[in-house]
Amino acid sequence: MQITRTIALLALSLAVGAPTASAQTPPKKFAQPTTVRELVAASKPTDWRTVDPERTLYLEMASGRVVIELAPAFAPRHVANILKLARAHWYDGLAIVRLQDNFVAQWGDPLNSKPEVGDRRLPAEFTRSAADLPFSRLKDPDTYAPEVGFSNGFPVARTGAEGEAWPVHCYGMVGVGRDNDPATAIGTELYVVIGHSPRQLDRNTALVGRVIWGMELLSSLPRGSGDIGFYEPEQRVPIQSVRVAADVPASERMPLEVMRTDLPVFQQLVDLRRNRKDSWYKVPAGHIDVCNVPVPVREHAEKAEPRKKG
Amino acid sequence: MQITRTIALLALSLAVGAPTASAQTPPKKFAQPTTVRELVAASKPTDWRTVDPERTLYLEMASGRVVIELAPAFAPRHVANILKLARAHWYDGLAIVRLQDNFVAQWGDPLNSKPEVGDRRLPAEFTRSAADLPFSRLKDPDTYAPEVGFSNGFPVARTGAEGEAWPVHCYGMVGVGRDNDPATAIGTELYVVIGHSPRQLDRNTALVGRVIWGMELLSSLPRGSGDIGFYEPEQRVPIQSVRVAADVPASERMPLEVMRTDLPVFQQLVDLRRNRKDSWYKVPAGHIDVCNVPVPVREHAEKAEPRKKG
Repeated sequence: MQITRTIALLALSLAVGAPTASAQTPPKKFAQPTTVRELVAASKPTDWRTVDPERTLYLEMASGRVVIELAPAFAPRHVANILKLARAHWYDGLAIVRLQDNFVAQWGDPLNSKPEVGDRRLPAEFTRSAADLPFSRLKDPDTYAPEVGFSNGFPVARTGAEGEAWPVHCYGMVGVGRDNDPATAIGTELYVVIGHSPRQLDRNTALVGRVIWGMELLSSLPRGSGDIGFYEPEQRVPIQSVRVAADVPASERMPLEVMRTDLPVFQQLVDLRRNRKDSWYKVPAGHIDVCNVPVPVREHAEKAEPRKKG
Repeated sequence: MQITRTIALLALSLAVGAPTASAQTPPKKFAQPTTVRELVAASKPTDWRTVDPERTLYLEMASGRVVIELAPAFAPRHVANILKLARAHWYDGLAIVRLQDNFVAQWGDPLNSKPEVGDRRLPAEFTRSAADLPFSRLKDPDTYAPEVGFSNGFPVARTGAEGEAWPVHCYGMVGVGRDNDPATAIGTELYVVIGHSPRQLDRNTALVGRVIWGMELLSSLPRGSGDIGFYEPEQRVPIQSVRVAADVPASERMPLEVMRTDLPVFQQLVDLRRNRKDSWYKVPAGHIDVCNVPVPVREHAEKAEPRKKG
């Protein structure tokens, strides 16, 4: 059966990049979950945290809503400025201006206008101190950094417990475009990783968050035909608005939850990804890349409105 | 200037995943190339190899042509069977049946019919001996394998010079779907990586080639709304035909060249990717992931017909 075969090939990949299904059903009991799907189904409500609407952006396009969880722990001034720009409606009516295959989708103002509000220049917030930053370390070797792991749901690298830390450019991570001068990164132009992790960008830009819903609305856009994936004017995809979730009427908010990365449940998830236990796999990998552990996201069961996903 | 800023952000990423531009101009002289684009422009004709039409597939869709270079060095029997199926026109009229975000696009027969020709079962060709396999090793540490590098243009891992070797699941690599029984992988169903490298699949499937042209025609398809990205019947994208390039009239072939991975030019390219030299970068990565070195592909300057890209 080909379709059976196909499903087998991917039962193992569930939740790779995509949010997990809505948790409409009560936790199931598995003596020992063998897949991420089972683990999520068996998880406790306390294994999840609610996403703070004060640090969540809704990017609205004709095709639907993209939800971005901001990460002020890494780039507080950049995040503050982005919130300010969103609240001034600066992004409304701008466009996705570029899509380079296996790299990034990028949005901003094709006309290069400057916002009336917010900062004109900002200090580089590309790394921060690792001290006092929660860190659930992966034991696996990493090509680029001495240590990698997770902090409050974001993939992070660090030189050591007392050294420097920075978020890493995994699929779905959102960063700030800039000119050669780092101070020009102020948040007027943002990009999201849509391909293999471009880790060479780590420590060279401010990463300010992660797309936690609707990623496919960006990743499936046509690739730009211009140089390095820029759209011709007629290809640009309009952005209707970017709103701070807290400013949206409660009935229009999405009650999203992210799996906590500081609890045993997440270590279990990492272990399941490191060594797949379903019968399709013949050779367990034994290791896991920090960008191959997408942190699960779901709609809170009771708060979710009955409706179709964006 | 925002657009300047944006271009700066990505001048550095040229040729990430995408084939390089057609080499319509004579080699330029750069005392010391500082970007991949300059390196390609300065390369010699002998730095490139012509893709063998006997091991090249043209997958034709309404949107254009996808070109796959097959890799018989790793899965000779699978590649032979796929060539047989293509020559029997078995793939013609089938469809892209699944697209899972940040994972794979997959094609096959939605009706699960069996081909009249070729093998019904095949031995697993998931690894091979590393002895006698050309191997240009990367010095960088890898999360999953003791050694990684390139062999005839394909990304490869190995346990050591006398151990086992296998191709790795980088962006654009093409593999064979299967059921839990490895012998069911015969090539009737194929997938291509469209997201972050799912290295957990390494050594668990037969990788048979790499998309060297038209990748964006697959990666930008809508994501499937079914479980693990399967398309509903009405979402399926028809495959008009899959042809062996050697069977296509010469005037309809694409004269593609791939940069050789066994020459100094490729080591130079790897070094440029490991430590970007353009002025946008403030902190060079110092390392490179095997999946962050897409091997350049171009149309041969003199043989290329004047026409638009697919």
